[in-house]
Amino acid sequence: MVKDRLKDLRDLMLKYNIDAYIVPTSDPHQSEYIADYYKTRKYISGFTGSAGTFVITNNKAGLWTDGRYFIQATKELDGSGIDLYKMGVEGTPTIIEFLNSEVEENGIVAFDGETYSYSAYLDLKKGLKNKKILSDRDLIGEIWKNRPSKPMDKIFLHDVNYAGITAKEKIAKVKDFMEKNNIDYYLLSSLDDISYLLNIRGLDVDYNPVIISYVLINKDKTTLFVDLKKVDKNIIENLKLNGVEVDEYEIIFEELKNLNSTKTIYFNPSRVNVKLFNSLPENINKKTGIDFTTNMKAVKNTIEIKNQRNAYIKDGVALVKFLNWVEENVSSNNEITEMDCSRRLLEFRKEQELFIEPSFETISAYGENAALPHYSPSDRSPVYLRSKGLYLVDSGGQYLDGTTDITRTIALGDVTEEESLHYTLTLKSHIRLMLAIFKKGTKSSALDIIARQPLWEKGIDFNHGTGHGVGYFLACHEGPQNISPRSNNINMVPGMITSNEPGVYIEGSHGIRIENIMLCIDKFQTNFGEFYGFESLSLCPIDTKPVIKELLTSEEIQWLNEYHNRCYEELSKYLNGEELEYLKEKTKVI
Amino acid sequence: MVKDRLKDLRDLMLKYNIDAYIVPTSDPHQSEYIADYYKTRKYISGFTGSAGTFVITNNKAGLWTDGRYFIQATKELDGSGIDLYKMGVEGTPTIIEFLNSEVEENGIVAFDGETYSYSAYLDLKKGLKNKKILSDRDLIGEIWKNRPSKPMDKIFLHDVNYAGITAKEKIAKVKDFMEKNNIDYYLLSSLDDISYLLNIRGLDVDYNPVIISYVLINKDKTTLFVDLKKVDKNIIENLKLNGVEVDEYEIIFEELKNLNSTKTIYFNPSRVNVKLFNSLPENINKKTGIDFTTNMKAVKNTIEIKNQRNAYIKDGVALVKFLNWVEENVSSNNEITEMDCSRRLLEFRKEQELFIEPSFETISAYGENAALPHYSPSDRSPVYLRSKGLYLVDSGGQYLDGTTDITRTIALGDVTEEESLHYTLTLKSHIRLMLAIFKKGTKSSALDIIARQPLWEKGIDFNHGTGHGVGYFLACHEGPQNISPRSNNINMVPGMITSNEPGVYIEGSHGIRIENIMLCIDKFQTNFGEFYGFESLSLCPIDTKPVIKELLTSEEIQWLNEYHNRCYEELSKYLNGEELEYLKEKTKVI
Repeated sequence: MVKDRLKDLRDLMLKYNIDAYIVPTSDPHQSEYIADYYKTRKYISGFTGSAGTFVITNNKAGLWTDGRYFIQATKELDGSGIDLYKMGVEGTPTIIEFLNSEVEENGIVAFDGETYSYSAYLDLKKGLKNKKILSDRDLIGEIWKNRPSKPMDKIFLHDVNYAGITAKEKIAKVKDFMEKNNIDYYLLSSLDDISYLLNIRGLDVDYNPVIISYVLINKDKTTLFVDLKKVDKNIIENLKLNGVEVDEYEIIFEELKNLNSTKTIYFNPSRVNVKLFNSLPENINKKTGIDFTTNMKAVKNTIEIKNQRNAYIKDGVALVKFLNWVEENVSSNNEITEMDCSRRLLEFRKEQELFIEPSFETISAYGENAALPHYSPSDRSPVYLRSKGLYLVDSGGQYLDGTTDITRTIALGDVTEEESLHYTLTLKSHIRLMLAIFKKGTKSSALDIIARQPLWEKGIDFNHGTGHGVGYFLACHEGPQNISPRSNNINMVPGMITSNEPGVYIEGSHGIRIENIMLCIDKFQTNFGEFYGFESLSLCPIDTKPVIKELLTSEEIQWLNEYHNRCYEELSKYLNGEELEYLKEKTKVI
Repeated sequence: MVKDRLKDLRDLMLKYNIDAYIVPTSDPHQSEYIADYYKTRKYISGFTGSAGTFVITNNKAGLWTDGRYFIQATKELDGSGIDLYKMGVEGTPTIIEFLNSEVEENGIVAFDGETYSYSAYLDLKKGLKNKKILSDRDLIGEIWKNRPSKPMDKIFLHDVNYAGITAKEKIAKVKDFMEKNNIDYYLLSSLDDISYLLNIRGLDVDYNPVIISYVLINKDKTTLFVDLKKVDKNIIENLKLNGVEVDEYEIIFEELKNLNSTKTIYFNPSRVNVKLFNSLPENINKKTGIDFTTNMKAVKNTIEIKNQRNAYIKDGVALVKFLNWVEENVSSNNEITEMDCSRRLLEFRKEQELFIEPSFETISAYGENAALPHYSPSDRSPVYLRSKGLYLVDSGGQYLDGTTDITRTIALGDVTEEESLHYTLTLKSHIRLMLAIFKKGTKSSALDIIARQPLWEKGIDFNHGTGHGVGYFLACHEGPQNISPRSNNINMVPGMITSNEPGVYIEGSHGIRIENIMLCIDKFQTNFGEFYGFESLSLCPIDTKPVIKELLTSEEIQWLNEYHNRCYEELSKYLNGEELEYLKEKTKVI
């Protein structure tokens, strides 16, 4: 099937005189999760992973993806005639190197500019030697016969009781920013930024409650460009009250063409696609940078924080019920699979008020499966939980009053000494970061080493960041801050919500991760300045069974006991019977 | 006097039609320490601090300097007609802002391009609006009547027994770098890089044993441009054996003009001056970046490390003798001043083999004076050491076999509870960094937070970096690595030598700093990768009198005791009598 598609595509390339064609994993907004309509890379390559870029020439085809997907991609590409290019492995050419060696001088490299970010286009332009670039060809669209339709769910309002500030107030802040920086137009393409700015939500993609749309702001008006069939009258009226007009999604391109070319426009080049950029008047003055709304939404307002706390209590209740269910069912029989757990957990979350959907695909992983940080269970190859070893569950929910994300690893029975050691070190690492005190001006990435120290001292490391920003009824992975070995320039400031998720992964044996979501808070002020710290928003017991107490410092033990006390105080009122007993047992002082 | 000089300067500006003239603190090589001949900024402004930029227009004159010098500059500029511009203080205009508001459209801004770095010139060019820039006017040279002559000390060789690798081998590595990067010419202007590359030293500036010179490397030849009167025949012969020719210092400009303009030249834009840049053929292909030799000399070779260890033993012996002398003289009478200490310490260092000169101006500071991290004592206002409170001494030596830098703070008698607390926290901070284990690939700046944690937890901070690179019989402050809140991209790797110098400074009360120089070493390798750590090169007891033992962890106490044991083992063989007794007493287990 893939072979036929490749043939169709090569026929089209011949027709248009194209020498190489690139298909990224992307939508027009550079979203993390994309609607089926935009899954062109999956259609043409047959590879179902969430990240990868497909490139084809008249005699070669390749898929570039990262370490998470090497095994899966090898399997899925088998027999397709598509080569796997393992990113990050020494000797693997980059896409640009590939194109430079495979495409002849003055050859034509093409892609669909609507799903290609402007900054990626700039990199391509800079890297390609003596090639021509065509950015207006959606060849996959031309060959894809039963292409899924674009998502059509209705937009809904995110009430100001949840959002804390009206869209009007938020827009006023953007206009302040524009005025201070002599900006006449602001083009916004990032979907969670748009949902945040206008206090609207939708169900256009999985896991993130966003709406496929663009926003253009100028001094006098703000326009939302969106498929009008999704917008009911009450939404239009509400937006109007906030000073926002609504127009058809595709009209944005016309609108950009007609901008006054003596003025200045601002946009984020890694979120704006090539088609948008090419629609701008050639001589318009361009200012680029991170979206102002990205920084604004990263620092949660007091109402968002209050609501978020509540969402984490509900989420904790669901998780305690679930963990009790797992331990009960594992101890009495061997009948539950990783997928059963995943489904049961969703049921418990659905019982909670204001729950909408999961915030990402649940990682429910027993034993050695947990050693793959991005593992997904499946019914096709069921894995049963046994009453020994460790079970890891990383999951989260979208609630009208918050987005959650939490990982617990629990002992289902006896664990090995190594598992205990790794569990305890992961816990130390988690607590160290939770207890960190840092001065105003500290970059979020600078905190990473605090979490890694206890593991590094034993020669252990984990191959992912320690923490990512978390949205508020929006993307579970949200910028701009992150706690990671790759240094960034983003200060950690009070109001930011970030995950704390160190882990240990031993291939073929076991995997451990302990994740709470933390709120950055003011700690104290002295003559030397302001000092910040963290408060855990996530509330759910951390299994103490695998803990080697002697390896914890008295300060670490104190944190754990106080945390469990808080869990009991906050969650016990929503539990009873054996679930309450379970909570009591799991929050006992050590 | 300064007023007359300003008048002479303004007369010249009028003559040449110059609207504003800039005098940086600099030599043609952007050196940290500069020869008297180049101290034009001091001559014209009367300000004697080590950092600052002077700018003059026909009706205004200003000096820009940083927080270290606000008090001193206020005093020294008083009555001169020069305004102090406090850098880093809100509301202070930058020099570029000043020039944009003071110089009219099409006005001429000038400076001496020979002492102005090319990167600073680019910043100026980018920032100035509608001004003309003249970069070939040394106006201070024209008005400076008794200008000191250029330094004329002879060059001497740094024997390969000390250097570890011959100049020939080092040049071969540079040529490898050039070949791999398609570079035809390499222009080197940084003085310590030149001394390192050619295994030569000189006494052209204080504290750094370097020679004012340039180097130009191409495929077939390497040329050292230097005042030929400094170069004896044996040096010329030795250099020739290493493939190096010698030419007059000023010839470099001619040589650059005659380069083949179809070729590629490499240089570091922040070390190359505007006059050099302007001498290049206009169309020559330019590649810029950090000097290759800077990275090369940062990672010490095995012979350098062996020698450096030895230099630190000698330096430790001198320092123990000195501290014993201080404690004796303070307890018996009140007759010694900070300056006496500084002189006595130099005498003790001079007794050591291969000692050449101090590696920077000694900071000998009693009581509240120690609260100024860059304090210099003076005979004009003598300060006597009393038998109470804390005394801080930060000093170092240049030896043929190494460069040292060490700070000790000692209790001269009773100390306050606050002093004890701050001393103990500084020590914790020092030890934490010394004990850090980190994975290959860790940026040097990422280590900073490890040292600051114990202080931040108590709401304390210090306003300087935690560590700088240290040269090998070269600059005491050497790049590229540093341990600092400002993130850099430089990995900390085995062979790098870096200071570890946290401190606490309480204005009007006391100052504490504990500094050892550390060698980055391999610790162990596991399935997760390679892990590095530090070994202290500095060997000298850390005063335990002010330590509050209960605040140290058992690991920290263990480090301190083991360190003191090492100090005793390494230093005791070179001491006897009461000095040996002193060492024994000071290295007792706590």
